[in-house]
Amino acid sequence: MTTTTALPYSVQWDDTHITLLNQQALPTITEFIKLYSVEDVFDSILKLKVRGAPAIGLTAAFGVALGANQDGSTDLGEFKQNVTKHIKKLASSRPTAVNLFWALKRMENILQAAKSIPAAKEALILEAKAIFTEDEEMCRKIGEHGLSLFAEGDSILTHCNAGGIATARYGTALAPFHLAKERAFPIKVYACETRPVLQGARLTAWELMQSGVDVTLISDNMAAHTIHHKQINGIIVGADRIAANGDTANKIGTLGLAILANHYGIPFYVAAPSSTFDLSLESGTSIPIEERNGDEITFIQGVKIAPDNVKTFNPAFDVTPNHLITSIITENGIISPDYVKNIPLFVN
Amino acid sequence: MTTTTALPYSVQWDDTHITLLNQQALPTITEFIKLYSVEDVFDSILKLKVRGAPAIGLTAAFGVALGANQDGSTDLGEFKQNVTKHIKKLASSRPTAVNLFWALKRMENILQAAKSIPAAKEALILEAKAIFTEDEEMCRKIGEHGLSLFAEGDSILTHCNAGGIATARYGTALAPFHLAKERAFPIKVYACETRPVLQGARLTAWELMQSGVDVTLISDNMAAHTIHHKQINGIIVGADRIAANGDTANKIGTLGLAILANHYGIPFYVAAPSSTFDLSLESGTSIPIEERNGDEITFIQGVKIAPDNVKTFNPAFDVTPNHLITSIITENGIISPDYVKNIPLFVN
Repeated sequence: MTTTTALPYSVQWDDTHITLLNQQALPTITEFIKLYSVEDVFDSILKLKVRGAPAIGLTAAFGVALGANQDGSTDLGEFKQNVTKHIKKLASSRPTAVNLFWALKRMENILQAAKSIPAAKEALILEAKAIFTEDEEMCRKIGEHGLSLFAEGDSILTHCNAGGIATARYGTALAPFHLAKERAFPIKVYACETRPVLQGARLTAWELMQSGVDVTLISDNMAAHTIHHKQINGIIVGADRIAANGDTANKIGTLGLAILANHYGIPFYVAAPSSTFDLSLESGTSIPIEERNGDEITFIQGVKIAPDNVKTFNPAFDVTPNHLITSIITENGIISPDYVKNIPLFVN
Repeated sequence: MTTTTALPYSVQWDDTHITLLNQQALPTITEFIKLYSVEDVFDSILKLKVRGAPAIGLTAAFGVALGANQDGSTDLGEFKQNVTKHIKKLASSRPTAVNLFWALKRMENILQAAKSIPAAKEALILEAKAIFTEDEEMCRKIGEHGLSLFAEGDSILTHCNAGGIATARYGTALAPFHLAKERAFPIKVYACETRPVLQGARLTAWELMQSGVDVTLISDNMAAHTIHHKQINGIIVGADRIAANGDTANKIGTLGLAILANHYGIPFYVAAPSSTFDLSLESGTSIPIEERNGDEITFIQGVKIAPDNVKTFNPAFDVTPNHLITSIITENGIISPDYVKNIPLFVN
């Protein structure tokens, strides 16, 4: 039996506007907002209504297409100047988002190559749609490979939100669960809430519930007891950056889960597109770990939970050493150890 | 250099009243309330202004002394009847608190043995003070034994609040830190926030800051990265119940920390009074694990952080198997493996 996942698209092109899932309002309010102008798109990226590197890139690309389509110029040069301004504005919305610049660069190349205004408008829409479709297809392939590692009835634990709402669809670590649901392949998911920012509670739980996936939310420190008492069969997480030896930087808490998987003898999988690999890094020790403001620990949604002036340590990521990773799932296939030897076979 | 810890007493006998730290208002408000009647004492226990089994028992014992002292009876039989009513009332404040019943039983024995009203009043105050002093002395001994395991400059990680404010003073797992501070013996403490109820953030961080201990608060899932990158030398936790083989039930999250300690080759200590052992239990597998309401996970201080109707799993405790425990610190000394053989040497 095959059905389509009920997970809504977080970004959608609707000809006269873009429909965007307002991720800032989750999980208590499920709200789709309509973006009718480049200004709207800029604002939604700036105010974090859209999050997740691929989803931000897609939204910006559609924003360029939207701005181009609304342009009333009759002179091609003037048209290109106007659209270039839109691209520059959108590029300034999140200054460190590599995916955003990459998507806007693709749009700019299409713009510059256009021979007429109508052709440019059409080509820009097609390019934004292509970026979208390529991302969806890549996530789907990660999901296919990931699902091949699970058995019917498995209970799988995940962390943070490597999810469909951060991408065109399906996500990375969550892709196997959405695909499983499409195929009525039973899998039970346990989602760690992921302090301090609670992406697991706010986003992963919400996203999997939308798809109809059987998901149970736990606090992060319940993972060991849950693995032991709920017969967890494996753990799957996303990645922010993977070194040439397979060492993986991901959301804080990932390392602890990998150690638990190792202790209990269950597989620990990393799911990520091949673009996540940074082969210039020999190992994870050279990945810098961002330390964020302690208010993320001492306040939860504006409510103070710790004494005034308490010292905090708030690393946003940790690095899981390669020997704790059973395999790395990419759109090009499943990479197993020895990673130094095998990663180049799957990643350019 | 020896100074006294600056940690305030959470329960104090002040002749005409009891002064109680309102633990419900922590960590944002440090408030001491005065209890002038048995009714006040009953109310403070019922409304969780005092928490921690030993502290509840002490507060109730002082409550009996307070009620007895305020009694205007001139007939010994009538006096005993009145005080017995107070004891019964206080016993109904927290129906499952073993320590509460134990303390009240001691008070009742003193009451029944008294030969005159003035003698009874004096003896009841002395008995409550004795319960207090014995608890303080026991915690201090646990602290002495615990501190002997640490070196100057160590960084030690702890979980939940096995603290002074739950006892007469010093606490169990936190006792070595308070003693270290008295002796200007430098130790750095990392406190896990302890989701879902956040005792680490709300109570342990506050308590150690009161004493002037160098404490840093982290989210629970930061433990692995912190152990690795902050050169943690050991982990110390309290216990709710310890089986005859050393298996230890304690606040959820303890098991995961024990596995991390094992992985990184650092010691994992349990600190608890000998009364915590239940030698009728052969192992930890027979300790029932309380599952609490999912609202503890989905709401933080009244703020919703997860989708409506999300499934949750909320075990309040976990069981750490004996092979992950380096030693168990009691008031009678430090118990090392083999626990089955050694525990009876320290515990009656």
